[in-house]
Amino acid sequence: MQRSIITGTGAYVPAVVKKNEEFGADGFYDGKHQRINQPTSMILEKFIQITGIAERRYAPEDIVASDMAAIAGREAIRESMTDIETIDQIIVAHNYGDIKMNTIQTDSVPSLASRVKHKLGILNPYCVAYDVLFGCPGWLQGLIQADLYLKAGAAKKCLVIGTETLSRVTDYADRDGMIFSDGAGACILESIDDEGDHRGILSTAARSDCREEAFYIDFGQSYGPDYDNGRRFIKMNGRKVYEYALRHVPEAMKDCLDKSGVDIHSLKKIFIHQANEKMDEAIVKAFYQLYGIDSPPEYVMPMCIHWLGNSSVATIPTLYDLVRNGKVANQELHQGDIIMFASVGAGMNINAACYRY
Amino acid sequence: MQRSIITGTGAYVPAVVKKNEEFGADGFYDGKHQRINQPTSMILEKFIQITGIAERRYAPEDIVASDMAAIAGREAIRESMTDIETIDQIIVAHNYGDIKMNTIQTDSVPSLASRVKHKLGILNPYCVAYDVLFGCPGWLQGLIQADLYLKAGAAKKCLVIGTETLSRVTDYADRDGMIFSDGAGACILESIDDEGDHRGILSTAARSDCREEAFYIDFGQSYGPDYDNGRRFIKMNGRKVYEYALRHVPEAMKDCLDKSGVDIHSLKKIFIHQANEKMDEAIVKAFYQLYGIDSPPEYVMPMCIHWLGNSSVATIPTLYDLVRNGKVANQELHQGDIIMFASVGAGMNINAACYRY
Repeated sequence: MQRSIITGTGAYVPAVVKKNEEFGADGFYDGKHQRINQPTSMILEKFIQITGIAERRYAPEDIVASDMAAIAGREAIRESMTDIETIDQIIVAHNYGDIKMNTIQTDSVPSLASRVKHKLGILNPYCVAYDVLFGCPGWLQGLIQADLYLKAGAAKKCLVIGTETLSRVTDYADRDGMIFSDGAGACILESIDDEGDHRGILSTAARSDCREEAFYIDFGQSYGPDYDNGRRFIKMNGRKVYEYALRHVPEAMKDCLDKSGVDIHSLKKIFIHQANEKMDEAIVKAFYQLYGIDSPPEYVMPMCIHWLGNSSVATIPTLYDLVRNGKVANQELHQGDIIMFASVGAGMNINAACYRY
Repeated sequence: MQRSIITGTGAYVPAVVKKNEEFGADGFYDGKHQRINQPTSMILEKFIQITGIAERRYAPEDIVASDMAAIAGREAIRESMTDIETIDQIIVAHNYGDIKMNTIQTDSVPSLASRVKHKLGILNPYCVAYDVLFGCPGWLQGLIQADLYLKAGAAKKCLVIGTETLSRVTDYADRDGMIFSDGAGACILESIDDEGDHRGILSTAARSDCREEAFYIDFGQSYGPDYDNGRRFIKMNGRKVYEYALRHVPEAMKDCLDKSGVDIHSLKKIFIHQANEKMDEAIVKAFYQLYGIDSPPEYVMPMCIHWLGNSSVATIPTLYDLVRNGKVANQELHQGDIIMFASVGAGMNINAACYRY
């Protein structure tokens, strides 16, 4: 029976560390451009309590999203010992394309996938390279698409990358701006047909809610006093996103797990989009409650948001790469472990995949 | 046997007509920012000789790409008599997202597909909406992806849209800027399983060439004297694109036709990306020559570039919609006709699909 397995992962963790204390020097403002009348220290303390973010990484000045994507991709290729000329598809998820430092235009012509293919030096013309835009769940959606290509026999090996430089669309007058970061993560997903090998994707689920939810995360003016200069930034209605995620992510995860036929007690790890620590904890708790379990097992949810922030499409593949490589304390994976990927973000979109490691 | 058939099409042809004579008032410049030392009238005459473009359409001021996409999509839905809540996927191809008039930022958060779903009022959360970036061949690539979903049983009905406002990334100091236009086209692709119905997609082909070709079409400075203001525009190395297209598009078309098992003499129409009339004619001629046929049959290649210009991802679905609706002189389709879609563009990417009407 065909199975799609991840044979290599890679991540680009940018070198520039940006600590919470580096924010707020010019004050924080609310959506009505009014200065928030609280000491910055108090705002920062509340921020870390809710989000779990103490610091984050930004791409160096001369690096754009496609550069990070190529580095993460090369690592995944190396780990999977893939001959680059055997890759059938390169799928790159992002939302803002390449934005050069100190500019505001998105550059996605050619697509980031074309740039990655160029940087990796892949010559095979039948390696088809394209980008997918699906909010923060874009990387996972790319993986779901790749799985379909493999299942349909339309590809044998896909390189799936998520890359984003959110620092270049961040409004520093907005407290929420501290959530966002830069990064890239990648994997090679390939098809095997081996009765004795039970690894691979077991089930997937996805949904898009686009009524008023479509604009819970969007592109808007700065909260600061210079808001009227036409420039726009990533904007988030945090409360609405939280409520939406709590209502629908646990059910999508349950839908996915139930489709896989795996018992909830066999689930070893949940690699959830690193959006916000409190929100992620609440989602996982609510997911377990759908099975009548009051508290999730210890260590079921590895996190790296504390030092990496929310790098959109990059969080899951980066976290997965870190855990696989033993770089997250108290977290390890063993062959046969059932794990789940789950994400939520702009669209609003939600998706999940169950996987036997 | 499963077949993916197009049951409805739609197009948005913007109302703003922009004639060649409206260009060049401030002169044309070359890639070295030198004013081209020829009378504008001569430049315009040469332009229409090569490209076949006499006028083009621009989106009205208050319209962005996702608005056009929703209008085209709604038309395709109406024609196919589709209940909107039965659509499983919305795939929107574009390259520059929504760019508001007099701004330069790309807005693709939420994705254009989410915006379309929002505008169409589709509530079904399992209608998954995402964008694909694949240069000008993006709409056709979306169709190829949708076909795969249908073949794999992962969807029954997909709305596939191409939309672009190239006028908002056009450098008016560059003669090539006159090529570009705005528009949107759409179709409903759905799965049937009827032994008696032989319509549908017969074969597809795609390739990506990303060595030096990756930057034949990219994002660069203005050719004009104010080039150093940081703003970037769509840029094309016309000669390189022409040479590349002539070398590889005919072979991709042949690959696709041969896969379909259809004899070249049965091919009734080629809906080719409206890039440039002379180039399109040369491609089709070279394609026939691969079969030892010196001249393509009369009327095999419907064109609308004369009055619509090159609207990137929108050209093929728009042209197809026009022909289906009897709006192109001397062009008609009859049930059972074998037709081909073929495209080439930034990436560089090429694709093709054979279809029984």
